[in-house]
Amino acid sequence: MSRSVILLSGGMDSATVLAIALAEGRECYALSFDYGQRHNAELKAAETIARQPGVIEHRTITIDIAQLGGSALTDKEIAVPSQASEGIPVTYVPARNTIFLSYALAYAEVVCADTIYTGVNAVDYSGYPDCRPAYIAAFQDMANLATKRGIEGNPIKIRSPLIELSKQQIVERGLALGVDYAATVSCYSANAAGQACGVCDACRLRRAGFDAAGLGDPTRYASKVDHG
Amino acid sequence: MSRSVILLSGGMDSATVLAIALAEGRECYALSFDYGQRHNAELKAAETIARQPGVIEHRTITIDIAQLGGSALTDKEIAVPSQASEGIPVTYVPARNTIFLSYALAYAEVVCADTIYTGVNAVDYSGYPDCRPAYIAAFQDMANLATKRGIEGNPIKIRSPLIELSKQQIVERGLALGVDYAATVSCYSANAAGQACGVCDACRLRRAGFDAAGLGDPTRYASKVDHG
Repeated sequence: MSRSVILLSGGMDSATVLAIALAEGRECYALSFDYGQRHNAELKAAETIARQPGVIEHRTITIDIAQLGGSALTDKEIAVPSQASEGIPVTYVPARNTIFLSYALAYAEVVCADTIYTGVNAVDYSGYPDCRPAYIAAFQDMANLATKRGIEGNPIKIRSPLIELSKQQIVERGLALGVDYAATVSCYSANAAGQACGVCDACRLRRAGFDAAGLGDPTRYASKVDHG
Repeated sequence: MSRSVILLSGGMDSATVLAIALAEGRECYALSFDYGQRHNAELKAAETIARQPGVIEHRTITIDIAQLGGSALTDKEIAVPSQASEGIPVTYVPARNTIFLSYALAYAEVVCADTIYTGVNAVDYSGYPDCRPAYIAAFQDMANLATKRGIEGNPIKIRSPLIELSKQQIVERGLALGVDYAATVSCYSANAAGQACGVCDACRLRRAGFDAAGLGDPTRYASKVDHG
């Protein structure tokens, strides 16, 4: 049975990816990051989601991105916007996916996994450069030059099964696989109870996905929000 | 004046790289990592080395590689060998350079640096896959797809000026630039005072460099060692 490392943020995308990896018969090693994100409720959601058969272990690594600053998600002096904006948003965390995938690569080497699954998504990436297919392909090329298994002719594969999917398609795929989206947290400003703000980019994209799929939105909101 | 991020371990190679970057007129942002390495004396050496004109700031980031295990350098249950061995050594830390360069990439984005300098070396890499020119090139390609400055047509460059040099050439280059090698620590098992064991791979390579250059070895050893 093949082993895989799954990047598990606790959001709806990574929960869907875990379900896909399990459906593909993978032994899953889930990896989460505590990077000083405002939405720490995500990490509790990741723990809950990781408690299922087929997930061999779940590790949460504390990383110091916040110390470098530069993003509304980790820097308390930059406000999380409540409206969509042009270009690369202030919620962009410098090199975040590269750092996450690098740790996943280290973890994959240690547990002898041959695949890393990530929930990055090019459709909804709203300007994040490190969510595009060309980036994932380049990371995979680099990874196979970087590692023991790569130079021993046993290449590692980076799978990003959601990369070309709309939020609607992600929701439909996940529900077909039995994902409990009520357990996931996407909001950039979720409160300690895991309730979403309803107005940030992540909330808007998530809600639009459920709406487009014609499904009820299971998200727990902090208060009644006018979704216009 | 161009800004650069310098990966500064506190060893002789990275001290040489910093001297090269300064000689090339760079404003330097030095970056070190506390990754649970046994040879923590390195970090003190890095602090000392970073205290020079042209180094704008020096940050040390704590990272959690040790939690993933898999290397004699971070796992107390794996002994550091005192003899050279075939293939990839047990001192190899999974994906270490990839993780280091990923943080350097994030730091470069935050301080608007256009270059990252690393002291990786292919000649003495003794089996580390992530010290080869093809790996560095692949990382640079990935980095320019990963980041804001990359997609804005302002690519970042990864410079590894030592990659094809022998230890002898590194020592000669550094001395010509005034590097104080007595302040650097290379040993995998250095004690708290920064004194080297004299028998590990890193000590052997370092000493051979000074010997080949016909220079006195300024390394401070823990005790008299027979270098036979």
